[in-house]
Amino acid sequence: MECRKATVLISCPDRKGLVAAIANLLYELGANILHADQHLDRGAGMFFQRIQFELPDLADLRTVIGRKCESLGMTFRLVWADQRKRTAILVSKQDHCLWDLLLRHRAGELATDVACVLSNHADAGDVARTFGVPFHHLPVTPETKAAQQQALVERLAEAQVDLVVLARYMQILSGDFLTHVAVPVINIHHSFLPAFVGERPYHRAHERGVKLIGATGHYVTAELDAGPIIEQDVVRTTHADDVDDLVRKGRDLEKVVLARAVRAHLDDRVLVYGNKTVVF
Amino acid sequence: MECRKATVLISCPDRKGLVAAIANLLYELGANILHADQHLDRGAGMFFQRIQFELPDLADLRTVIGRKCESLGMTFRLVWADQRKRTAILVSKQDHCLWDLLLRHRAGELATDVACVLSNHADAGDVARTFGVPFHHLPVTPETKAAQQQALVERLAEAQVDLVVLARYMQILSGDFLTHVAVPVINIHHSFLPAFVGERPYHRAHERGVKLIGATGHYVTAELDAGPIIEQDVVRTTHADDVDDLVRKGRDLEKVVLARAVRAHLDDRVLVYGNKTVVF
Amino acid sequence: MECRKATVLISCPDRKGLVAAIANLLYELGANILHADQHLDRGAGMFFQRIQFELPDLADLRTVIGRKCESLGMTFRLVWADQRKRTAILVSKQDHCLWDLLLRHRAGELATDVACVLSNHADAGDVARTFGVPFHHLPVTPETKAAQQQALVERLAEAQVDLVVLARYMQILSGDFLTHVAVPVINIHHSFLPAFVGERPYHRAHERGVKLIGATGHYVTAELDAGPIIEQDVVRTTHADDVDDLVRKGRDLEKVVLARAVRAHLDDRVLVYGNKTVVF
Amino acid sequence: MECRKATVLISCPDRKGLVAAIANLLYELGANILHADQHLDRGAGMFFQRIQFELPDLADLRTVIGRKCESLGMTFRLVWADQRKRTAILVSKQDHCLWDLLLRHRAGELATDVACVLSNHADAGDVARTFGVPFHHLPVTPETKAAQQQALVERLAEAQVDLVVLARYMQILSGDFLTHVAVPVINIHHSFLPAFVGERPYHRAHERGVKLIGATGHYVTAELDAGPIIEQDVVRTTHADDVDDLVRKGRDLEKVVLARAVRAHLDDRVLVYGNKTVVF
Repeated sequence: MECRKATVLISCPDRKGLVAAIANLLYELGANILHADQHLDRGAGMFFQRIQFELPDLADLRTVIGRKCESLGMTFRLVWADQRKRTAILVSKQDHCLWDLLLRHRAGELATDVACVLSNHADAGDVARTFGVPFHHLPVTPETKAAQQQALVERLAEAQVDLVVLARYMQILSGDFLTHVAVPVINIHHSFLPAFVGERPYHRAHERGVKLIGATGHYVTAELDAGPIIEQDVVRTTHADDVDDLVRKGRDLEKVVLARAVRAHLDDRVLVYGNKTVVF
Repeated sequence: MECRKATVLISCPDRKGLVAAIANLLYELGANILHADQHLDRGAGMFFQRIQFELPDLADLRTVIGRKCESLGMTFRLVWADQRKRTAILVSKQDHCLWDLLLRHRAGELATDVACVLSNHADAGDVARTFGVPFHHLPVTPETKAAQQQALVERLAEAQVDLVVLARYMQILSGDFLTHVAVPVINIHHSFLPAFVGERPYHRAHERGVKLIGATGHYVTAELDAGPIIEQDVVRTTHADDVDDLVRKGRDLEKVVLARAVRAHLDDRVLVYGNKTVVF
Repeated sequence: MECRKATVLISCPDRKGLVAAIANLLYELGANILHADQHLDRGAGMFFQRIQFELPDLADLRTVIGRKCESLGMTFRLVWADQRKRTAILVSKQDHCLWDLLLRHRAGELATDVACVLSNHADAGDVARTFGVPFHHLPVTPETKAAQQQALVERLAEAQVDLVVLARYMQILSGDFLTHVAVPVINIHHSFLPAFVGERPYHRAHERGVKLIGATGHYVTAELDAGPIIEQDVVRTTHADDVDDLVRKGRDLEKVVLARAVRAHLDDRVLVYGNKTVVF
Repeated sequence: MECRKATVLISCPDRKGLVAAIANLLYELGANILHADQHLDRGAGMFFQRIQFELPDLADLRTVIGRKCESLGMTFRLVWADQRKRTAILVSKQDHCLWDLLLRHRAGELATDVACVLSNHADAGDVARTFGVPFHHLPVTPETKAAQQQALVERLAEAQVDLVVLARYMQILSGDFLTHVAVPVINIHHSFLPAFVGERPYHRAHERGVKLIGATGHYVTAELDAGPIIEQDVVRTTHADDVDDLVRKGRDLEKVVLARAVRAHLDDRVLVYGNKTVVF
């Protein structure tokens, strides 16, 4: 009998016996626990757990776990390792994150299918074609903003994606977009949020004379650059770096930070609560 | 009924049901799991787990857990949070790590009693007295090496220590020392091991022209600078740094790296296997 | 004939021949250049230079250099290495930066005399006495705020200090303070400015769910936490860190960042222009 | 009259007046100094300087500077910014550094022409073609080792390269190779040298249980992995990382470290002396 791998992510108010309850259930189902992580936020009184396990394919596993979790007041998410997520990448003129994600995907670092690349610039098409990924050019002008966003939503719906990655997509998306797309959207912002929310963060960092610049990978919410942070990193700068140097140094940061955030999401290692993340 | 906190550290060959078995046992004993970490080394086929829990004081907990672990082929260690370890600090002329450890201890960062400070130099006495810690001056000459080491062993036995920290203690200790002391010994080595094993690592780093210098906190074994590594870190250097600059920059590294290693040990977050560590 | 070491810091609008002009002047004076750094801010069109040199003591060096710099439209600062600056350290309840600075001073890392330690808490007195540094306890209540600040100013004037270091001094100082003290004031702020300006930055960092916390050493200006940044650094945090963990991790950062900022200032490696610094 | 940019790199035994002598010469030639860095190695008694300047094109600049430097006992190197170096990239199966260098080149980060890509594997051909760079497949077997190396040397001679980059080229090159190629060769080694010289450094790092892995960009000399280090960096690892994780994390390091080393060389910011580098 063949085994399948799965991951279950659980959150609920903390109380005694939660670990044992889940461990027992999995044991009774014949599952072998491969990895388990947990976190207790004492301030919030919340318990979080991620368990990777393998077991003989049980058609009704979701029902069985669902029943148990319900009886324990738990919220849960169950994902099978062999059901790969479908990802769309949105990009504007700066294509370094796009290249980086596609190269990592080819190297096997990202457990996903890249469903499509969408851009308001035609240039990204060549990159997508290099990797054999469908490309849609959706140009935008101040006048066509709403229509273009509608077209984006339609393309994403057609592509049946589970994740949207904004890999330096420089158009502001309205709250509607999130509602209609209805899957997680990860953005890379080129500053160490919450510093330098909004436009031209490298210029403002240069003006403020900071000695470090950063990048932040976060889930997109209706409020600009204010969503739950998944990953951040920084690089040292000096007075000798002009804005162009910050942009250059920042590219390396953006690539790595976005890739780590996307990888964590694809591996189902991220739990969102309040406006924060647990990254197992 | 009052509750006590405890930590159990487990290692054994991997097999199915281990997590559930322990979670169950603790649940049946009325324990509340506060934190659990586990690690599976697939290459070695070994399973490691650390569980922090609280439970009503059971006089025979050690026996109960011991019986269970034996039946499962597990090696285990059980420690009560309220049984503070006793630590001795050995130091030579350079006293920055000594100051650092004693200040961190006073700030509540290190869950231990500092039993005594031992040194082959008299100077450290002032530091120890500042913190009200017993001090023993055990000078050493090439002729008195063996006798001094014997005196060290006796002092440590009298002080009934659970941990010895070599906070820049620059005398080489013989294999005998470890045998007689019979508690873990943590050393700070001023290089990123395995580079620059042995003497004068900063001089050799300068000569080799490295662009980073490091420090390593590790358990001491009979082989010089070859014991299991607990923590390492590095700092950037340039051609403009002479050996004195490396020594100065290195001091900051040594303090932080040693403190993290000692803290991890005192919090019972370190499991040694082979010549490596799991640091939960 | 004995030689003295000096440093000259120069800034002026950029134009051709500046480097040669100064190099020549020093050569003609019989000076040996030990180290020279320069920076050209193209955006601002400003040239900055720092030259360390040694030369036979010329009583009128300041006049000679001054005349040259005036003729070239340069602003300059001349400091003799053997005229040590006098530093006052202000501290409140948290004393880790105070310990750190005094230990570094004793280890020879900071080229200054510590003139005095001032605190609104009595506790810091023990620390100051350990190092034989004069201590003044200047308690403060909401009612005595103005009077206490006046007393601070008087103590600093009596002590004839060249630098004031706010080593976690938690009282807000009015703009008047800076005017009356009339020497540079360096503060350590426990966030990566400009994020989390103001109070309780670790609490706000925890709430925002950042994955890095930072510390910033900066010159104090009338506007809170908005002065020129000298040094910044960060440390990684995770969802598992509660506010107490951030505070603990932050202490290590604060110590190192403040020490680097103070050291750079004392070594005359910092030039302020606009609201930014050149740190040679 | 148009201006050209140039860089002069100087090294010589230290003595008084060196800075003034060069600054003067450049001033007299009508040059405008854009940036100057210098370093004095007190231990070695050596002085190093790098000056970027712009001046009206003087056909005999090299002669004029050469005469001056000779009279001062200086070794010098003069490079015109508009004479781009020609670079060859050698690669084996792992192509992440190749992609990275070619993408950076396209983004304008590397001031060079990429003359060709050479590989013992055919796969790299597709990468080279994506960027329109000539590719030569030079397969190698244990029997054809010497002949293949000879072919490499010939290709490099034909391509008239100024720099050879080993971007994870996994064949050991003989001392002869360096002699015949007669231009600098930069290698990326996947460890923090001098730790883990030679083969399979990630496997050995895993076995040793280090808590950091590193990468080193260095000039190749006859002795394996022992040449002058240009750049190093590290990334944190834990017990949870198996060898595959180290390889994956290491790829990001290798790319960045190699790119920084190559960029420093191409910008003429590196001076080699003894077995070390000054990187301005």
